Amino acid sequence: MPDLPAIYVLNGPNLNLLGVREPEIYGRDTLADIEARCVTVAGDAATVVFRQSNHEGLLVDWIQEAREKARALIINPAAYSHTSVALLDAIKTLNIPVIELHLSNPATREAYRHHSYVSEVATGVIAGFGAHGYELAVQAALNRIRERG
Amino acid sequence: MPDLPAIYVLNGPNLNLLGVREPEIYGRDTLADIEARCVTVAGDAATVVFRQSNHEGLLVDWIQEAREKARALIINPAAYSHTSVALLDAIKTLNIPVIELHLSNPATREAYRHHSYVSEVATGVIAGFGAHGYELAVQAALNRIRERG
Amino acid sequence: MPDLPAIYVLNGPNLNLLGVREPEIYGRDTLADIEARCVTVAGDAATVVFRQSNHEGLLVDWIQEAREKARALIINPAAYSHTSVALLDAIKTLNIPVIELHLSNPATREAYRHHSYVSEVATGVIAGFGAHGYELAVQAALNRIRERG
Amino acid sequence: MPDLPAIYVLNGPNLNLLGVREPEIYGRDTLADIEARCVTVAGDAATVVFRQSNHEGLLVDWIQEAREKARALIINPAAYSHTSVALLDAIKTLNIPVIELHLSNPATREAYRHHSYVSEVATGVIAGFGAHGYELAVQAALNRIRERG
Amino acid sequence: MPDLPAIYVLNGPNLNLLGVREPEIYGRDTLADIEARCVTVAGDAATVVFRQSNHEGLLVDWIQEAREKARALIINPAAYSHTSVALLDAIKTLNIPVIELHLSNPATREAYRHHSYVSEVATGVIAGFGAHGYELAVQAALNRIRERG
Amino acid sequence: MPDLPAIYVLNGPNLNLLGVREPEIYGRDTLADIEARCVTVAGDAATVVFRQSNHEGLLVDWIQEAREKARALIINPAAYSHTSVALLDAIKTLNIPVIELHLSNPATREAYRHHSYVSEVATGVIAGFGAHGYELAVQAALNRIRERG
Amino acid sequence: MPDLPAIYVLNGPNLNLLGVREPEIYGRDTLADIEARCVTVAGDAATVVFRQSNHEGLLVDWIQEAREKARALIINPAAYSHTSVALLDAIKTLNIPVIELHLSNPATREAYRHHSYVSEVATGVIAGFGAHGYELAVQAALNRIRERG
Amino acid sequence: MPDLPAIYVLNGPNLNLLGVREPEIYGRDTLADIEARCVTVAGDAATVVFRQSNHEGLLVDWIQEAREKARALIINPAAYSHTSVALLDAIKTLNIPVIELHLSNPATREAYRHHSYVSEVATGVIAGFGAHGYELAVQAALNRIRERG
Amino acid sequence: MPDLPAIYVLNGPNLNLLGVREPEIYGRDTLADIEARCVTVAGDAATVVFRQSNHEGLLVDWIQEAREKARALIINPAAYSHTSVALLDAIKTLNIPVIELHLSNPATREAYRHHSYVSEVATGVIAGFGAHGYELAVQAALNRIRERG
Amino acid sequence: MPDLPAIYVLNGPNLNLLGVREPEIYGRDTLADIEARCVTVAGDAATVVFRQSNHEGLLVDWIQEAREKARALIINPAAYSHTSVALLDAIKTLNIPVIELHLSNPATREAYRHHSYVSEVATGVIAGFGAHGYELAVQAALNRIRERG
Amino acid sequence: MPDLPAIYVLNGPNLNLLGVREPEIYGRDTLADIEARCVTVAGDAATVVFRQSNHEGLLVDWIQEAREKARALIINPAAYSHTSVALLDAIKTLNIPVIELHLSNPATREAYRHHSYVSEVATGVIAGFGAHGYELAVQAALNRIRERG
Amino acid sequence: MPDLPAIYVLNGPNLNLLGVREPEIYGRDTLADIEARCVTVAGDAATVVFRQSNHEGLLVDWIQEAREKARALIINPAAYSHTSVALLDAIKTLNIPVIELHLSNPATREAYRHHSYVSEVATGVIAGFGAHGYELAVQAALNRIRERG
Repeated sequence: MPDLPAIYVLNGPNLNLLGVREPEIYGRDTLADIEARCVTVAGDAATVVFRQSNHEGLLVDWIQEAREKARALIINPAAYSHTSVALLDAIKTLNIPVIELHLSNPATREAYRHHSYVSEVATGVIAGFGAHGYELAVQAALNRIRERG
Repeated sequence: MPDLPAIYVLNGPNLNLLGVREPEIYGRDTLADIEARCVTVAGDAATVVFRQSNHEGLLVDWIQEAREKARALIINPAAYSHTSVALLDAIKTLNIPVIELHLSNPATREAYRHHSYVSEVATGVIAGFGAHGYELAVQAALNRIRERG
Repeated sequence: MPDLPAIYVLNGPNLNLLGVREPEIYGRDTLADIEARCVTVAGDAATVVFRQSNHEGLLVDWIQEAREKARALIINPAAYSHTSVALLDAIKTLNIPVIELHLSNPATREAYRHHSYVSEVATGVIAGFGAHGYELAVQAALNRIRERG
Repeated sequence: MPDLPAIYVLNGPNLNLLGVREPEIYGRDTLADIEARCVTVAGDAATVVFRQSNHEGLLVDWIQEAREKARALIINPAAYSHTSVALLDAIKTLNIPVIELHLSNPATREAYRHHSYVSEVATGVIAGFGAHGYELAVQAALNRIRERG
Repeated sequence: MPDLPAIYVLNGPNLNLLGVREPEIYGRDTLADIEARCVTVAGDAATVVFRQSNHEGLLVDWIQEAREKARALIINPAAYSHTSVALLDAIKTLNIPVIELHLSNPATREAYRHHSYVSEVATGVIAGFGAHGYELAVQAALNRIRERG
Repeated sequence: MPDLPAIYVLNGPNLNLLGVREPEIYGRDTLADIEARCVTVAGDAATVVFRQSNHEGLLVDWIQEAREKARALIINPAAYSHTSVALLDAIKTLNIPVIELHLSNPATREAYRHHSYVSEVATGVIAGFGAHGYELAVQAALNRIRERG
Repeated sequence: MPDLPAIYVLNGPNLNLLGVREPEIYGRDTLADIEARCVTVAGDAATVVFRQSNHEGLLVDWIQEAREKARALIINPAAYSHTSVALLDAIKTLNIPVIELHLSNPATREAYRHHSYVSEVATGVIAGFGAHGYELAVQAALNRIRERG
Repeated sequence: MPDLPAIYVLNGPNLNLLGVREPEIYGRDTLADIEARCVTVAGDAATVVFRQSNHEGLLVDWIQEAREKARALIINPAAYSHTSVALLDAIKTLNIPVIELHLSNPATREAYRHHSYVSEVATGVIAGFGAHGYELAVQAALNRIRERG
Repeated sequence: MPDLPAIYVLNGPNLNLLGVREPEIYGRDTLADIEARCVTVAGDAATVVFRQSNHEGLLVDWIQEAREKARALIINPAAYSHTSVALLDAIKTLNIPVIELHLSNPATREAYRHHSYVSEVATGVIAGFGAHGYELAVQAALNRIRERG
Repeated sequence: MPDLPAIYVLNGPNLNLLGVREPEIYGRDTLADIEARCVTVAGDAATVVFRQSNHEGLLVDWIQEAREKARALIINPAAYSHTSVALLDAIKTLNIPVIELHLSNPATREAYRHHSYVSEVATGVIAGFGAHGYELAVQAALNRIRERG
Repeated sequence: MPDLPAIYVLNGPNLNLLGVREPEIYGRDTLADIEARCVTVAGDAATVVFRQSNHEGLLVDWIQEAREKARALIINPAAYSHTSVALLDAIKTLNIPVIELHLSNPATREAYRHHSYVSEVATGVIAGFGAHGYELAVQAALNRIRERG
Repeated sequence: MPDLPAIYVLNGPNLNLLGVREPEIYGRDTLADIEARCVTVAGDAATVVFRQSNHEGLLVDWIQEAREKARALIINPAAYSHTSVALLDAIKTLNIPVIELHLSNPATREAYRHHSYVSEVATGVIAGFGAHGYELAVQAALNRIRERG
């Protein structure tokens, strides 16, 4: 299926600890579990490119790569949501749908998590549904890809 | 099917004009179209109680009603998101999942739309997916209801 | 004269007490006096629909009604000027001239009266002329209607 | 006793849930229990008019009614304390003592509960004494009525 | 008609370019056109003294002159609205009605145009009616002069 | 009556001038008058320890003394309400009810009187009832002592 | 000369170190030198009561004493300028002229020295003239006393 | 007396109305009265150059002139205190003592009068002594000139 | 060469003191030196109109003159950068390139120099290169003129 | 050992309650325990002068005493950290090392504890190590004294 | 030419997309085009070391390298201008001229682009001249190198 | 000694320049000197893992590594203290003591250095003791390890 559209799913700092770190907030699924669920939802309709990094610069590189290769971007920027204008600038160079995702609902947490640079350029936002949020995001991405034909 | 769990879907001020008002921002679906799509997604798993009001007090009344009758609440508080502590207080009396929904992504609009009182007590937030966001919200609600058994 | 264009004149909370409440600030004319003066200014050129409510939701309903029936809207939002995004949203759905009116000049009063959500979407503002301001507003509305043909 | 002075006791949004909602903060008394205690304190010295509404506009209507019929106003504006300039404006039209009442002490809760528009025009404030605060408020009202002769 | 009361109409910086600069915001009338319309409205009831300057100090001089010679002042302070305490101080020395006028509605423009020092001491404000606003202002001035006898 | 519970009533700076300073705001009762009224209300149910100081450190000492000797604390911190973290810290060491009292309603006065450190740790607040407020506070204290058994 | 009017000159915390502490800012005169210069300026026209304390409460006591005994108050509140609402309240109880004095010009120093509570109630302010400022202040006080007769 | 040192006394906008404008705040002396008092105080020790302008630019010109010709500058910048960085920059080019003078105490007036750009570079400040403040300022200037030899 | 395009170079308040005032910040070149260097850079490609004023209004007049006569504007607004909306409005009427120039880098100086109204409408900004910055600005202006043909 | 250098260890308000008040934050050691540990660490190298007061003025007196008698100052200003400019001013008169100490880490507590006036002039800060922090502070003080010879 | 001084030209995140991303703002030149223009301007006077990275840490490494190897630094920090204290700290370790460069004028864009940490330590700033700005920067660097000999 | 507990000592951006960069603030010790001192203090009680990086992502990686391998973490986050929520999140995943260390006292430096995200989750803070602070930190870490057994 070489012609399947690709959905990039990028994960920011400390998400490699998912399932371990503060499970009462973030749940017990690991990133590998979540990747599997995304692939299942995407099914025959799209391939999923699923990555994680603690490095802001690497996330910028991958977003730029998505300019060429992806039909939709799902990004959980984690801590960089709140501090990175560089991610924002990288996302502004895309002309594909961009879905910002958070496992928990940042508005119920510390004040410095209430503002997200990424939200200012995201097509849509999904927050507070734990691992299930990734499944919703893939569905939303597929829906957008379909609408654009 | 008298035993089906109920999902309340409440809509705030000016949403009765959906499909007419600023369609380039909010899309061309009417509330009736959206209600139909919610019912379809809920299928045999839940009934959908779908309402709209321009009156803050009436929305508070309905949220209180949901305390008794609903298993999940989906609310698009529209303008009251940003000004109503009364909605927040009403939602705090619930012990069911509460999903805040916005057709567009408030973070990309005027500054006074960046803060939502409802977000501070919502389980999750879905924003920026237009009418399709309601379908995602119903799915999320069903998922939460299933998890709670 | 069934074909006369309509000018809606809507009045917000506590204005039903006009002539009684703090007359040194608001003057001694009652709302009924003011309605009569508006009708006189409108003369044969327009009908005047003149209403008051203490209920934010009802004011939203009436603004929506004006979408269908009015050629111009004059609104004295009183206290809701400063707190209601719902009024702002309702007004944004109109494509007729909207004139915001205040009996006194809010800039000379308490700090929380210095910002008006309605001003952000009003065509024009008239403040500080007491009951006479309504006459000026009707004139301005007629002028706008004439210009639009 | 047709000549007894009346004390209006008005209650804002969500207070109809008293005794149910977050009892660890608000106590287990219902509004009906509290009304009974107010009537007891007032005894032969005053009648008590006791009401609750979730609707800001209706509360404004009742405050205006109190202009004609009451000798003192006790108001627990609940969530509208923090957002309603309309209540403030209505209260400013009164020339009777106005006592603002809160079951809990807002200064110990979320930041958005620290400011009250009603406080800016209240004669006095009683907060943090639960249902007992209503009894103190009725006493204070009676004291004021007596002083005014 | 040496005994006619005088209405001073003062115009601040860059208004000499009216009709040329950003006509989509300010309209195509020149200052001379507007002066003519003011004279027409004033008719036999008042003389109109109509001036423009880019110099803050000169505007202060003219306002002081109006202390002696005018029965009402209409001022479009343009950019100096937002920065000049000196205009505010000069206006405070007057005991005639002062009408602040803006061609466009500053509340719909840049943030630094939302505050006006002049508004803090103006009797009334008219904004957003283009050149027609001057006609309304002259009417309002005449009305005030009449009321003062 | 050696076993009577004690209620401490502490008064902050400048309250020794009560009855003299700005009587239109604070009333004509002196502190001695007020102490007598407190004793009357307490009756056989409690002893009243009533003191005043202009020294922040001495008030801290007395609050610490109340840890050992009092069953309830009533404090009118006056100017120190707004500046003293030391009072706040001292009060936090108590596990008895603490009632903050103000003769006037600070919310109707200068902006720097709107925040009170003491409010952040007080059980309840009574403000705006002049000397009568002390009587209400003693009643409230008795009520709390009774509830705690 | 028992009938000479008294001028109180009060000095706040750390001023006992004058002549020692940061002489490049505050000069080399000691408080005793300054007292002597004040006495010289007062001459036969007034007695000078000159004191210093590091204790906020003691300064409050002295200001209260000045209510009875002084015809004018000169106060260098030093660090308490910026933090003491208690001094402000004490000064408000006076009905004699109050002159605030600073050796250096606080506006040219750290940001937390730019606001002074005392300035809000002072009759006049003298700052930046070092020890000479005390002489100017005594002259100004004499002048005010003379005017009041 | 060609060799007498010169003291420049510059006065900002609206001060030409002194004695007329808000006399309850500014007193009844005119600028001419004040100039005479300054000359008297200066006596044989200095000449006084006394000027007023409503024009910020002219005040800047005069301050620059003072660089060459004056031994001390006394300036009452009036409204320009609060808005003019240009005055501040001009004063920074001087190496003579600069005394800022205000007739009333700006700290007791509107918030926008609490900050003065001129204060940031003034040697000293005298405020709140009405016309008498000019006499104190000339004395202070003479004192400084003497100290510099 | 009557057909040479003109470049206006305008200089704001206190720049006439260049070479004298704070040379450690602004350098030792006088305005005349700088004008000569600008003329040299412009060479045969453009004429240079070089002016300075301390008067905000005159600078506005000159900017308006540049509308008719210049192909590019270089402006060093000095202190008026931070306070003049009038300069901003005047510049907005131009449709030629506008280059804002500062001798020093304002971002390394006092906080009130960090915001410039002129920057909000300038095509480009050059700061921190002393007199050499003018040469760079003339080059940039020539480059822009060439690009526009 | 009359020649041993002295280290002053001063403790602010409420620290006399140490070991009693909120032990989960501050630990169970009393001040006497801590003094003993300080003396042990100082050993033969220095004497320890260890004091506590709830009075801001007395702490200022002791700091002034330390000017003469101490080689290093350790101060736990407790609540006065956040409100006392007087402590700051007193410390500025010292020319010995000053170590600010907090038992808990103020940055993890309430917002009003995040700013410390003392920090602005302290040589170093130690926070969050409970009673052990005093031992670290004495070590750091000894180290500084040794370095200065 | 082994002895030629080196000019480092460093480019921050997303600038590798130059010529592609939002060309209406940033122009159509690629980084390679710009490097060529810089080399041309430098000519025989200097070598140009030209690099780009999306990684904040790598930019810090390169700035540190410039300490040893460069005579001037030109840096376009892009998004990191607004968020990186690390770049600021690295630049502070240099003692060579540092020129901050932006293709567009940040002051005309989003609010979060108005502050630059780099500006606080840059020698000079050039913004808004597109690719031509690099040529101006190289000239300015050469000029500075020449001045330093 | 394979069983010795490990103390991780991580150093943020630009600290590799220690001993070179601004030695008047940071001292002349290099990182290698400091590492040696840490090892000496740790002695037989712990091994020291000592690293530095300019890359935020790498510091996050190392903190995660410390979750598995360290018994205590000492971190000098340098510039990232003020901007990195990612470091904060990484530290929150640890359950070992975390000591934040700064060579200088950030509170005495620029405003943007006054807030540290790391402080919000650190066990303790040591600041302002230069290289000696590392020795104190290792001591504190050993103490904590001992207490935990």
